[in-house]
Amino acid sequence: MDFLDEPFPDVGTYEDFHTIDWLREKSRDTDRHRKITSKSKESIWEFIKSLLDAWSGWLVMLLIGLLSGTLAGVIDLAVDWMTDLKEGVCLSALWYSHEQCCWTSNETTFADRDKCPQWQKWAELMTGYTEGAGVYLLNYFLYVLWALFFSFLAVSLVRVFAPYACGSGIPEIKTILSGFIIRGYLGKWTLLIKTVTLVLAVSSGLSLGKEGPLVHVACCCGNLFCSLFSKYSKNEGKRREVLSAAAAAGVSVAFGAPIGGVLFSLEEVSYYFPLKTLWRSFFAALVAAFTLRSINPFGNNRLVLFYVEYHTPWYMAELVPFILLGVFGGLWGTLFIRCNIYPVLEVIVVTGITAVLAFPNPYTRRSTSELISELFNDCGSLESSQLCDYINNPNMSRPVDDIPDRPAGPGVYSALWQLTLALVFKIVITIFTFGMKIPSGLFIPSMAVGAIAGRIVGIAVEQMAYHHHDWIIFKNWCRPGADCVTPGLYAMVGAAACLGGVTRMTVSLVVIMFELTGGLEYIVPLMAAAVTSKWVADAFGKEGIYEAHIQLNGYPYLDQDEFTHRTLATDVMRPRRNEPPLALLTQDSTTVEDVETLIKDTDYNGFPVVVSHESERLIGFVQRRDLILAIKSARQKQDGVVSNSVVHFTEDAPQIPASNPQPLKLRRILNLSPFTVTDHTPMETVVDIFRKLGLRQCLVTRSGRLLGIITKKDVLRHMAQMMNQDPESIMFN
Amino acid sequence: MDFLDEPFPDVGTYEDFHTIDWLREKSRDTDRHRKITSKSKESIWEFIKSLLDAWSGWLVMLLIGLLSGTLAGVIDLAVDWMTDLKEGVCLSALWYSHEQCCWTSNETTFADRDKCPQWQKWAELMTGYTEGAGVYLLNYFLYVLWALFFSFLAVSLVRVFAPYACGSGIPEIKTILSGFIIRGYLGKWTLLIKTVTLVLAVSSGLSLGKEGPLVHVACCCGNLFCSLFSKYSKNEGKRREVLSAAAAAGVSVAFGAPIGGVLFSLEEVSYYFPLKTLWRSFFAALVAAFTLRSINPFGNNRLVLFYVEYHTPWYMAELVPFILLGVFGGLWGTLFIRCNIYPVLEVIVVTGITAVLAFPNPYTRRSTSELISELFNDCGSLESSQLCDYINNPNMSRPVDDIPDRPAGPGVYSALWQLTLALVFKIVITIFTFGMKIPSGLFIPSMAVGAIAGRIVGIAVEQMAYHHHDWIIFKNWCRPGADCVTPGLYAMVGAAACLGGVTRMTVSLVVIMFELTGGLEYIVPLMAAAVTSKWVADAFGKEGIYEAHIQLNGYPYLDQDEFTHRTLATDVMRPRRNEPPLALLTQDSTTVEDVETLIKDTDYNGFPVVVSHESERLIGFVQRRDLILAIKSARQKQDGVVSNSVVHFTEDAPQIPASNPQPLKLRRILNLSPFTVTDHTPMETVVDIFRKLGLRQCLVTRSGRLLGIITKKDVLRHMAQMMNQDPESIMFN
Repeated sequence: MDFLDEPFPDVGTYEDFHTIDWLREKSRDTDRHRKITSKSKESIWEFIKSLLDAWSGWLVMLLIGLLSGTLAGVIDLAVDWMTDLKEGVCLSALWYSHEQCCWTSNETTFADRDKCPQWQKWAELMTGYTEGAGVYLLNYFLYVLWALFFSFLAVSLVRVFAPYACGSGIPEIKTILSGFIIRGYLGKWTLLIKTVTLVLAVSSGLSLGKEGPLVHVACCCGNLFCSLFSKYSKNEGKRREVLSAAAAAGVSVAFGAPIGGVLFSLEEVSYYFPLKTLWRSFFAALVAAFTLRSINPFGNNRLVLFYVEYHTPWYMAELVPFILLGVFGGLWGTLFIRCNIYPVLEVIVVTGITAVLAFPNPYTRRSTSELISELFNDCGSLESSQLCDYINNPNMSRPVDDIPDRPAGPGVYSALWQLTLALVFKIVITIFTFGMKIPSGLFIPSMAVGAIAGRIVGIAVEQMAYHHHDWIIFKNWCRPGADCVTPGLYAMVGAAACLGGVTRMTVSLVVIMFELTGGLEYIVPLMAAAVTSKWVADAFGKEGIYEAHIQLNGYPYLDQDEFTHRTLATDVMRPRRNEPPLALLTQDSTTVEDVETLIKDTDYNGFPVVVSHESERLIGFVQRRDLILAIKSARQKQDGVVSNSVVHFTEDAPQIPASNPQPLKLRRILNLSPFTVTDHTPMETVVDIFRKLGLRQCLVTRSGRLLGIITKKDVLRHMAQMMNQDPESIMFN
Repeated sequence: MDFLDEPFPDVGTYEDFHTIDWLREKSRDTDRHRKITSKSKESIWEFIKSLLDAWSGWLVMLLIGLLSGTLAGVIDLAVDWMTDLKEGVCLSALWYSHEQCCWTSNETTFADRDKCPQWQKWAELMTGYTEGAGVYLLNYFLYVLWALFFSFLAVSLVRVFAPYACGSGIPEIKTILSGFIIRGYLGKWTLLIKTVTLVLAVSSGLSLGKEGPLVHVACCCGNLFCSLFSKYSKNEGKRREVLSAAAAAGVSVAFGAPIGGVLFSLEEVSYYFPLKTLWRSFFAALVAAFTLRSINPFGNNRLVLFYVEYHTPWYMAELVPFILLGVFGGLWGTLFIRCNIYPVLEVIVVTGITAVLAFPNPYTRRSTSELISELFNDCGSLESSQLCDYINNPNMSRPVDDIPDRPAGPGVYSALWQLTLALVFKIVITIFTFGMKIPSGLFIPSMAVGAIAGRIVGIAVEQMAYHHHDWIIFKNWCRPGADCVTPGLYAMVGAAACLGGVTRMTVSLVVIMFELTGGLEYIVPLMAAAVTSKWVADAFGKEGIYEAHIQLNGYPYLDQDEFTHRTLATDVMRPRRNEPPLALLTQDSTTVEDVETLIKDTDYNGFPVVVSHESERLIGFVQRRDLILAIKSARQKQDGVVSNSVVHFTEDAPQIPASNPQPLKLRRILNLSPFTVTDHTPMETVVDIFRKLGLRQCLVTRSGRLLGIITKKDVLRHMAQMMNQDPESIMFN
């Protein structure tokens, strides 16, 4: 048997920072599948192996769900504990957070559940005093110190052990899912360091969230489990199916929203998403969500992060403030994206400033998720929060849930001031935070900005309605004594608007918010705000934050936007006029030396093979990497192959004199079905083909003669040019 | 100016029962878009027109949502009224249903809300008596008579006015969305007749539902509104985007589940579903759902059809019966599909049998949705249904919602018998009903079968748990006095399983059921049942009912399943060995007469154009329809074009002697970028290309020479052959 009929080692793998060929991956998987199916009839053992192979997809999903749910739970618990550690410590058990510490204490009543003797602030522990300016300052100082310590630890760990662990990771994951190779980006080290530093970064009080990084963590889990099954580890296409599902699991645990997670993966992250993946993603997302719930880090037995229950419907007139919040969200998105694509300040400086400015204001001192939770909240009559300090009418005795409209008390007014300051602070500090070299997500900070703005608007509308029942706009739906405006709903709408402005999510945004609230009731306000925010932000620039970061990094990402320019394949293909002719191989007249010279002189990823230089009729395409490997292997193992040997891609060796050295047959590595288009093909069709079939390159012919080649990079460069961007910004292949 | 530079009338349209070319449609739309964009800079008026054009997509969605929501509301109200009309009539207002009649009556107490003097059964009205065997028989007789009348009317209307209005319509809509042309299938007449006959068919009491037909109705609305905008009416590709969204709106109103509707459209119905469509579908689905809610046909102000609220969690051990229900659902699906792809009994006969058998059993007499609603219901202490006839412990006073477990009363036992009979009846009659020549959906009947089975299992488990608290399986979670088994949940799980077995829906099924219940809590049982049912049913045959019907009708539908056989393009292309050579045109040496002969002698949809018969190098592809139109038009309008004229596809006219007649330039209709693959391309890649790019045909070349052609029909025939099916079953092009 000809040894060349055996595959060369490593033939069909890809180099780092290169793009995969989806069609080839798919066809390799089909081959694998065929082999297993035909073998499975041979013996019971092979049959069981084939069953295992068929079930491995579900098994991987189960494992991803379990691990990412567990990690999310551990992260939540650790963040909870470390955030409180900045303020004080639990004497009964050091590893208890403030809330857990006081839960286990029996001495406290319901009213002051967060004041219990076991929980001591640092100053109290060190000095014995609980009041006074000195104590306050000492607590302030220690708070800042802890924050600096956490962020220093985080930034050092990232810098030393896993530089890929920084940022949100979603732009890179989008790029990877579109078929790009970034080795180590989803590796074990990245997983470990990202998990640890995420806890540190969030606990340090920086204005960042854990949602994007959780997607990255889940994808690392996915990649980890892929390596257990050759079906996934050896096929870059199949691996990406698993990663798409893992991304869904990540969002699912970040928000307790499995359906929203699947839609997020489909809408925002994934590139190739067959229906089979949809079903599996849903499974992984559910397993992850239920694993997280059984860990129960929030102690409320709920899947969702911000559980809200409103008792009042919304009214058509309220659409006006909702749409205004949408406009605000769009503007915030634009501002954030514009300012944010230029990194990077020093982490420690930003942490210091954040901590110093955050401590005095109660709304910025607590963790951002707690803040959002409080802002979303409806003020039931049992609420003790400052935001719920309304002047209740003592004559009315009503059920807990039915609250008439009330004038705001002094607490609400002081909360309004503090919220306004918090809004300005959050806007500025979030812009500086994202893009630093630590794990950082933007969901929660963006939502916080929107929630603060929304709550302020909500309280304003509420008080206006209370004091002016006779105004025409309120007359129809807001009679005295009725509960007509829910400021918490405004906060939720604002949060959705700001998140939408930054990420440009649509369906998945509404579904995530819907899963948070659990009622279809409020979908229309959410949708109105999301649509407005997207339109406003789109008017200033089509790209969401992830696309902006992809472009900043020059990743070769072919997005789903339609290409509408009137160019033809012939305008894009290489060689252009004045360029040297296309680097070709002929089917039976090139020597090993010629090939080696060609490889040395050019850096193309592959070469077309033609019948002869005269006819230029196309036979196939051969990858540079495969060619190098094949020649190297042949020179080592195959006798008689020397520099003078003729390389042939035909079935039979060419007729050569007996004195010539033995020819080298390379048909095995020749792709006999290269993709071709004619030179008259409109570029919109070419772009469509590249996108839908996931090609690396495409050959251009005219009436059967090879004219040139179009690579993915050429397409991206051309698209950048057409949009008046710098075509040289596309950096990788 | 050469008149041929103007487009010929009708060039670029398709014939009935032909497949569209997605790439061409897309490229035509891009052209249109470019024209509008460049024109919009010319004047204010053109700018406004371009804005209108950009917004027309959203406008169409709004209109579809409004109309399909309204139609669904009207259908619901009419069905309600006519179903009751079989039993009696409201004296205060003839157009009131039983429930509405007694609502408006003040004389009734809460307990007997469905007994009021204004509502009279037919026998009571005619004879004055309310009791006795004669009265019963008279009511029975009139019930059957009304049913026969309704179904007779329905079947006659369908037969005379709109034969396309029969069936569920989903198989045809799937085929249409995949790019097939069926003229009139979504026309105004079909819309009208389907709406009317759907009401008649459902009211007649046949075992059929309105969900599938509602999707068809919504798609007809979509098609109707497409005709208002040339953007959609003149582009078959864009039209299909609208139709995909309309299908989502249809499911949305059928179940009050907008997210489920979008996922159903994505997973089950649509073929080409860009992300833009996702967002618009969601919008249409929401508008439709809210329109329906403002009509409020069920009088409960809810979006959902079967609103349920359970108060008990489920326990791990219950997964066993849930999975058993999944197995049942899979078996039911298999049985249904096997029996159902052979139509058709006479409608009147089936209606007669249904009515005669259905009347005596209270569970089959009422409308199927009411039945399902009752089966899903949790037995609160206020329920008066026979199914809730438990023996309550009078010593316990508990809140309404907290029900301890109780022994079943005599009502429950007699209900069990009646349910068992109803189950058998439903299974048999549903099989005979679907596929008859009237509008008929299978969602509700399938769900009913599952719900009955589920409720029976649920009651059995519940009573077992009550009587055997000490058994190991119950010990851990079912202490005496605790409310541990919810039979309604079993009914819901059973319904999901049976629906899943028939349709093989996955994510959309779970999401629809989740939207019905409104709680994430029960997703795991639903998912376990749905997965089991799909696996069991898949073991007996991979196709769902819609695919089975598509195959039965021989529609050219290329489904998403992976093609795994090891064949090459050369095995599939025409001409085969022993067949006459490919029908070709040359670029500048064919005469008008030659072309006309070729058109007369063959029935191919198009012809490749080559440089010359000797070289066989490909230039382009020309459609038969365009060729006929162009020659006809040229013969009429262009002087000097006679049978002897040379047809040329080149830029410049060929060099011909002056004595020869004037040549006919046809480059205008030549597709210069036909799709080609090499003869070595694996068929799995070819199938992938056909599916993803939506091709009609693809040319096969070897080293630049044209070898043959593969059409969509060839691909489908080959796939059928590989699966040992009759390749001649594919009937259309």
